[in-house]
Amino acid sequence: MEIFIEPIGRLINQFSKLPGVGKKTAQRYAYRIVDMSDEEAAEFAKAVTECKKRVRYCSICGNFTEDEVCGICRSRDKSVICVVRDPRDVVAMEKLREFKGVYHVLHGVIDPMNGVGPNDIRIKELLARVDGSVKEVIMATNPDVEGEATAMYIAKLLKPLGVTVTRLAHGMPIGGELEYTDEVTLSRALSERKTL
Amino acid sequence: MEIFIEPIGRLINQFSKLPGVGKKTAQRYAYRIVDMSDEEAAEFAKAVTECKKRVRYCSICGNFTEDEVCGICRSRDKSVICVVRDPRDVVAMEKLREFKGVYHVLHGVIDPMNGVGPNDIRIKELLARVDGSVKEVIMATNPDVEGEATAMYIAKLLKPLGVTVTRLAHGMPIGGELEYTDEVTLSRALSERKTL
Repeated sequence: MEIFIEPIGRLINQFSKLPGVGKKTAQRYAYRIVDMSDEEAAEFAKAVTECKKRVRYCSICGNFTEDEVCGICRSRDKSVICVVRDPRDVVAMEKLREFKGVYHVLHGVIDPMNGVGPNDIRIKELLARVDGSVKEVIMATNPDVEGEATAMYIAKLLKPLGVTVTRLAHGMPIGGELEYTDEVTLSRALSERKTL
Repeated sequence: MEIFIEPIGRLINQFSKLPGVGKKTAQRYAYRIVDMSDEEAAEFAKAVTECKKRVRYCSICGNFTEDEVCGICRSRDKSVICVVRDPRDVVAMEKLREFKGVYHVLHGVIDPMNGVGPNDIRIKELLARVDGSVKEVIMATNPDVEGEATAMYIAKLLKPLGVTVTRLAHGMPIGGELEYTDEVTLSRALSERKTL
């Protein structure tokens, strides 16, 4: 005899597909659904279907949108483009409420070890956007090997187009401790030190 | 401007209702849904709806079932009843593949501090099940204050009915270390020591 009855077992399998969710957690989630009222469960299921149905990628920047062109591309300063790896990085930047420009989502970074080359991410689309009206492109890929390499690669392609290419600063995280900072970060913080 | 577009925001809210899921985790889950194929997302939503629609409580033991009476109550030895707090405890017991009897799910334990009295859990239903055919009732509520109190309370009601009432053994967990075992557990392990 199966330990879980079929509908619960199936829901556990579905929850297990979510990132970082193992069998135990999926089981807890499934029980929560069973404990919900009919309306709550229906609302939950609907949110899943609707999200998948209504969300697509902005034809300009590649961020999530419900329309052809996203709200950011429609309303903001197009002379500054911030290049990020994926849509969740847009969320991180937007939370600052400081950046007034637009984004370009690469949907990945160059990663030859995993078979991702320059043609597999949205680099061509970025080059097409950089016409005379763009003044600055901020490379905001992650400060890891692939992110750095991607930033360098794109910067090389962009510079001949006469646009300023910048990179997010590297250094000590605020609130961090010297003692626990890794050597690479500390070395960068030292070499990029600022006059006070 | 909202950081998340509406369908994503709504899905994040839904995922936040799951136990132990905060905003960040809910956000990761929502992105995973967006990344799914249409079929995968539909299957996910369907599993939620179906689970809620098809799962109900067994009219005898109170465990999850798709039918009036669950598979365990239909097919197993009814002379031994294992009393547990909720359906996930049945899962824990069933994983052993050792217990051949049936269950009784209380759907809670007596907990006066949170306003749960003996009439709020399925004690009456248990007493009704204990007729002459039942030889043993195993109290398998959790070994915490409420679980112990509930086990004692129910044992008192059952004993006059001429049934053997037992309790899961307390003691050192296998693989545990004496040094790190809490005093209450160690004291119980000592007082309930066995001759080798």
